[in-house]
Amino acid sequence: MSKRVAGPEIERLIQLLAKVPGLGPRSARRAALHMIKKKEQLMGPLAAAMADAVDLVGVCTVCGNVDTVDPCTICQDPRRDAATLIVVEDVADLWALERAAVFRGRYHVLGGALSALDGVTPERLNVAQLLDRVKHGVDEVILAMNATVEGQTTAHYLMDLLGDMKVTRLAHGVPVGGELDYLDEGTLSAAFKARRAL
Amino acid sequence: MSKRVAGPEIERLIQLLAKVPGLGPRSARRAALHMIKKKEQLMGPLAAAMADAVDLVGVCTVCGNVDTVDPCTICQDPRRDAATLIVVEDVADLWALERAAVFRGRYHVLGGALSALDGVTPERLNVAQLLDRVKHGVDEVILAMNATVEGQTTAHYLMDLLGDMKVTRLAHGVPVGGELDYLDEGTLSAAFKARRAL
Repeated sequence: MSKRVAGPEIERLIQLLAKVPGLGPRSARRAALHMIKKKEQLMGPLAAAMADAVDLVGVCTVCGNVDTVDPCTICQDPRRDAATLIVVEDVADLWALERAAVFRGRYHVLGGALSALDGVTPERLNVAQLLDRVKHGVDEVILAMNATVEGQTTAHYLMDLLGDMKVTRLAHGVPVGGELDYLDEGTLSAAFKARRAL
Repeated sequence: MSKRVAGPEIERLIQLLAKVPGLGPRSARRAALHMIKKKEQLMGPLAAAMADAVDLVGVCTVCGNVDTVDPCTICQDPRRDAATLIVVEDVADLWALERAAVFRGRYHVLGGALSALDGVTPERLNVAQLLDRVKHGVDEVILAMNATVEGQTTAHYLMDLLGDMKVTRLAHGVPVGGELDYLDEGTLSAAFKARRAL
């Protein structure tokens, strides 16, 4: 707010909320007001959950996931196949794959994708750690970068580095539930080329 | 998330964030991840600001505004004209009017609008307090309800109650910067009827 209408505590709350992705200045005010009205049910518990997360959550030194334990829950899970690694750009991608519940191997989070424009070089990603991990008992590396220019550049770069290993990537095609009419030509073309016998 | 991929602390953080207006389940995950990455710059300060707000922020017993002092900063400000009251539905409306910086009187926050559908009766709004306030040195009551059915119903109800007082309402018309082509017929019709000589 341009003018001071309430105590500085509320202004500060709004300013910080506006920095949360998904909330702008306007929705930060709305969120602040809602939380003030739901102090006991929402704002108090959320403040405590965030303070807990500040204290307890860290980055897994093995795979780059975020968790309250290190190595993370997935890296520690003996039921998960250590011989298969999915390489993802971001923890959000790891979460998305876990929600799909199709993969029982382990992860490696790069922490981004190569981008000359943004100055993201291989040194700024967890590439060295990946090369180190694949030396020990990894049979297959699945590259699950985003299907963007940066993601695909990163995938090609890693494919070169990984040399003779079995390296795969996710299939391109029509999203399940998707309508052809709304798909771009690139996706349709990829789906056509990778058509399967019924 | 349907499956447990990280510690329960992160799951709880995401669940609580999803209850913040403006954030859904997907953006709550994104927000949680962003805050985990910016623990020191964002999550820590935000947790502290929210804990402060839980402790310090309350509802002004005079006007219904939220503030860290009671009566609120506006009600305590001797430079603000106590003879003019703007009645608004919600604190968000009070904030919006303060940002416009056009009004130097005081406020009365009803806490909602009459709605038969949602069971909001006059007893559930700060109507009795308003009638009490206007008895003492108030010259003009400006009704600034939303231009919705509920808001206008509330405005008519209050107009009846306030009897012989000077009661005004905000003007309807073309929003400043607005294009006629995008305006609804009701607004255009109101703007036409209330046209002013140049």
